[in-house]
Amino acid sequence: MATVTTKTGQAVDRLTLDSMLRRRMFYTPSFEIYGGVSGLYDYGPPGTALIANMTDLWRKHFVLEEDMLEVDCTMLTPHEILKTSGHVDKFADWMCKDPKTGEIFRADHLVEEVLENRLKGDKEARGQKVEVDAEKEAKKKKKSKEAKVVKLDDAVVKEYEETLAQIDNFDGPDLERIIKNNMPGYLRPETAQGQFLNFQKLLEYNQQSMPFASASIGKSFRNEISPRAGLLRVREFLMAEIEHFVDPEGGKKHPRFQEVKDIEMSLLDRNVQLSGSTKTTKMTIGHAVETGLVDNETLGYFLARIQLFLTKIGVDFNKLRFRQHMANEMAHYAADCWDAELETSYGWIECVGCADRSAYDLTVHKNKTGAPLVVRETRPEPLRIEEWQIDLEKKKFGPRFKKDSKTVENAVEALSQELREKLSLDLEQQGKIEIDVEGVGSGKVELDKDLIKIEKRTRVENVREYTPNVIEPSFGIGRIMYSMIEHVYWSRAGDENRGVLSFPPTIAPTKVLLVPLSTNTAFKPLTQSLTTKLRRLGVSTRVDDSSASIGKRYARNDELGTPFGITVDFQSVKDNTITLRDRDTTKQVRASEDEILQAVKSLTDGDETWADILKRLPEFTGQDIE
Amino acid sequence: MATVTTKTGQAVDRLTLDSMLRRRMFYTPSFEIYGGVSGLYDYGPPGTALIANMTDLWRKHFVLEEDMLEVDCTMLTPHEILKTSGHVDKFADWMCKDPKTGEIFRADHLVEEVLENRLKGDKEARGQKVEVDAEKEAKKKKKSKEAKVVKLDDAVVKEYEETLAQIDNFDGPDLERIIKNNMPGYLRPETAQGQFLNFQKLLEYNQQSMPFASASIGKSFRNEISPRAGLLRVREFLMAEIEHFVDPEGGKKHPRFQEVKDIEMSLLDRNVQLSGSTKTTKMTIGHAVETGLVDNETLGYFLARIQLFLTKIGVDFNKLRFRQHMANEMAHYAADCWDAELETSYGWIECVGCADRSAYDLTVHKNKTGAPLVVRETRPEPLRIEEWQIDLEKKKFGPRFKKDSKTVENAVEALSQELREKLSLDLEQQGKIEIDVEGVGSGKVELDKDLIKIEKRTRVENVREYTPNVIEPSFGIGRIMYSMIEHVYWSRAGDENRGVLSFPPTIAPTKVLLVPLSTNTAFKPLTQSLTTKLRRLGVSTRVDDSSASIGKRYARNDELGTPFGITVDFQSVKDNTITLRDRDTTKQVRASEDEILQAVKSLTDGDETWADILKRLPEFTGQDIE
Repeated sequence: MATVTTKTGQAVDRLTLDSMLRRRMFYTPSFEIYGGVSGLYDYGPPGTALIANMTDLWRKHFVLEEDMLEVDCTMLTPHEILKTSGHVDKFADWMCKDPKTGEIFRADHLVEEVLENRLKGDKEARGQKVEVDAEKEAKKKKKSKEAKVVKLDDAVVKEYEETLAQIDNFDGPDLERIIKNNMPGYLRPETAQGQFLNFQKLLEYNQQSMPFASASIGKSFRNEISPRAGLLRVREFLMAEIEHFVDPEGGKKHPRFQEVKDIEMSLLDRNVQLSGSTKTTKMTIGHAVETGLVDNETLGYFLARIQLFLTKIGVDFNKLRFRQHMANEMAHYAADCWDAELETSYGWIECVGCADRSAYDLTVHKNKTGAPLVVRETRPEPLRIEEWQIDLEKKKFGPRFKKDSKTVENAVEALSQELREKLSLDLEQQGKIEIDVEGVGSGKVELDKDLIKIEKRTRVENVREYTPNVIEPSFGIGRIMYSMIEHVYWSRAGDENRGVLSFPPTIAPTKVLLVPLSTNTAFKPLTQSLTTKLRRLGVSTRVDDSSASIGKRYARNDELGTPFGITVDFQSVKDNTITLRDRDTTKQVRASEDEILQAVKSLTDGDETWADILKRLPEFTGQDIE
Repeated sequence: MATVTTKTGQAVDRLTLDSMLRRRMFYTPSFEIYGGVSGLYDYGPPGTALIANMTDLWRKHFVLEEDMLEVDCTMLTPHEILKTSGHVDKFADWMCKDPKTGEIFRADHLVEEVLENRLKGDKEARGQKVEVDAEKEAKKKKKSKEAKVVKLDDAVVKEYEETLAQIDNFDGPDLERIIKNNMPGYLRPETAQGQFLNFQKLLEYNQQSMPFASASIGKSFRNEISPRAGLLRVREFLMAEIEHFVDPEGGKKHPRFQEVKDIEMSLLDRNVQLSGSTKTTKMTIGHAVETGLVDNETLGYFLARIQLFLTKIGVDFNKLRFRQHMANEMAHYAADCWDAELETSYGWIECVGCADRSAYDLTVHKNKTGAPLVVRETRPEPLRIEEWQIDLEKKKFGPRFKKDSKTVENAVEALSQELREKLSLDLEQQGKIEIDVEGVGSGKVELDKDLIKIEKRTRVENVREYTPNVIEPSFGIGRIMYSMIEHVYWSRAGDENRGVLSFPPTIAPTKVLLVPLSTNTAFKPLTQSLTTKLRRLGVSTRVDDSSASIGKRYARNDELGTPFGITVDFQSVKDNTITLRDRDTTKQVRASEDEILQAVKSLTDGDETWADILKRLPEFTGQDIE
């Protein structure tokens, strides 16, 4: 476990945190009463509310703020689309299944493990020393019954060693040949493809206006074969993705870059990584784009907006860095790519990717289907192009070339400008030219002046057609949520078991805990009317009128991250004043119901902070609520 | 197409409506550029926003209003859970795939078709008359190449005929035996199962307090083999489901039933249906529960709440009915079940199901896994039970029965109260008794007074343990959306092609269209500042500053269902007044920016209607915006 510390300087104790998150039902293993399935988790009420609030904020921060076109595409995806996108060839893991236990493995991992075990057994049989990684071995022991001490034939050893050396290059059919069993998946690995396929309609919806962005929030799936690290490596997860379509010409400027250019960020560029270091540099995004470290304004704009979003939901700026992909780490088509990484007890975790995917996706789908995934725009001024044009006397082609007419025509049309220029000279000088036409006669065809004319003319192009480039910020919501939870987690001084989750009020699952001092029925009417009023204000509230002590009830809600508490006591029944408690400081103020409700609204909307409230409402120290 | 009329008395022209919905990108066939996949649709920007607003309202209306515990469970579901739930046996269609074309068929349909064709060929070969359904045949012709005229062996004919007679009873393995190819599905058909599996944790989260409800919004999947009827029969769809857990004792009362009891509803009960009629009866839900037509208060409460939700989002009360399931239509375990059906051009469509599922689901999962999916509650007063208890002299059992001891003990413990009473008499009178013990000796075992004592005693039970019943309102969001769209659709008098979607402001995809009178740059600053202000008010807005006429721009937004329009004209630049237009009446008012913004906020929050605004702000008839 990597050592990271909470804001109060304690080491994050992941086991304690995890057990708290499960106890409070932020999440829970799916199908647990059936023994569970690794890599699948259900979100309980606080987890679901947290995710809903995060995606709601995401929608406001990105989609509404910039009039993005949100779409909702299906998860079921035919093979052909993922084949074209490159996922089938590049990213799919080939799987196999133990027919006895039904357990599913990554095919390459299985082959690797079996071969390694056999080689080890062989070494032992040959009396050679076997180096052992104790921890790795302990884990393997449980799983594998293959590590027998058996001497192998020399040729077999060679074959195994060669196979292992190449294991990463094997594709499914190769692995199938080796282990005879595979199962490709047809659930989308990202929401992006649905957005690309709808590009033409979205452009139309946007009234042909560029640039624009589409966005989508939805579940995606990955064949994580050895899921681990809790919520960080799961098989089914929520993504929020933006595809910002931009003209590749003109340097990919962004009209609102000015608004973010002074934001300071922690950048870990690829050259630093190549030198073996992980030292980040702090600089403004404006400077990063200016110096070319970040490829262009649009990419830079989104990096800054990602940082604003992450810190707004509670991510610790000191545990956030943007890491540039190495050249060999990026897809070959990508122009630049940066990951927002969050530091957790699992190390630095990639939570948001932000790539310039160039024109790759639209191009491959256009080429495959013929659909015009392009922008056509009227040029402000017509473009005048000087070029060598060819006129054919088509009526004479039929009698002359018979069934080959069309082939010859096509060969002529395909001639390059360079060749046309040269041929125009030949034609002028010799009255005829010779061109290569594959499959017709000897492969050479002669054309004379009767059949062809080649002239330099000016063509006027009024419309420009181009394939937009795509800048893609892609958010793993579950990963962000887990990492953020580690950032806002701490425990009360002197008691490690009293955990607190300091969610910002805007994303906290429940905003207000309403606690009557005791189970006395005198408090009922006031509690009920407060619930109704808070609900009308749109402030999510839970009442805890159990018989537990107020301290215990607050402790429970510290673990749920509820930022505010309202206590109804005997004084309240008399004079309609109530107290408001702040989770982080445990301080309280006391005021009239109206004043407190107004303060709650203002705090949860983010208009005021607790410090503001403390300045204007009288502090209260009456009840002993700890 | 069933004839239904719009609010303005026009017949709903589905083709025109559908083409408008696609043109405005409410939805679009998925993967269309690849030829599409039947039964899969993507939602474009207005469809996505509409769904988001509907689910948001659903969450407020149900989850927040009643403190339901919202969860988010995985879609991937292991076979065992759906086997236990009964889905695999009862509802799953077994599938097979044409290895050549990749086309997927329902296995039973395929077998049926092939056998029918062969029998037909046989009949023809035998010179018998073949009755033909022309339409059915035309469809089949395209698909099947099997209808050869071939005479079959008599035994084969008999076998085929028997197979066809039983086709509906075949399960997957049977069909596999016949056609050697199947692929069961593992994507959830409903969100309910995840909620049931988490019952224990949810009860714990709810601090052991009953009744309570869980809720979930998420995608589910069905193997619709012949998807049709547009958005109504699709393979991937959004569901919103509530599982309300209630004590089966005490008549399933609901504490808030009083709030809804006077709501009038259109009910179509099962007896009316049995008599062959579809005539609905209007009555209050209070009366329906009182007379026993609706089984209990909790079920009735949710039926009324469903109606409130549906009419709030725009469903026409006159096109809404609640149809009771017939006895043979309900699952055997269901106590009562009603569907909210909406009338559309496709006929009456089931959009919400509301079933009393009794204790079925929790019981089957409990029995399968042993997990205690039960409620244990301390009885207010201990329960005293008079019963015949048995004491065994276990020390003497070993020497007497040897290895059979335990079997005999179990047989004794299993004796019914009735038998115990009779045996106690035998024991008293004869000093011994004889009991049946299967598998031991002759099957009879004699026990004398030394070994057994039977006495009537009082047992005190302090804790009551029971399996809750489940009332399940289950919403098909896509179906509701489509049907509601038909209800709010109409066209402007005199022009059938000028469609309008009269969405209620709360769920409209965009609330305000902002139109500068022309492309004159003088309007830019005001348009921009209005956008910012509306965004800050949380009112979703789109600017249309294209060069189209104002009338055209409004027509486009009528089709998108945008309820309000703000026009910025030269007067606005001078005196900062703007006009506000109502979509449904096309009337306008003119007032200061502040007044108009306040009116918009009040209209979109549902605090005021357009009629209210028209009373207090001056009408404006200046611009010609049609």
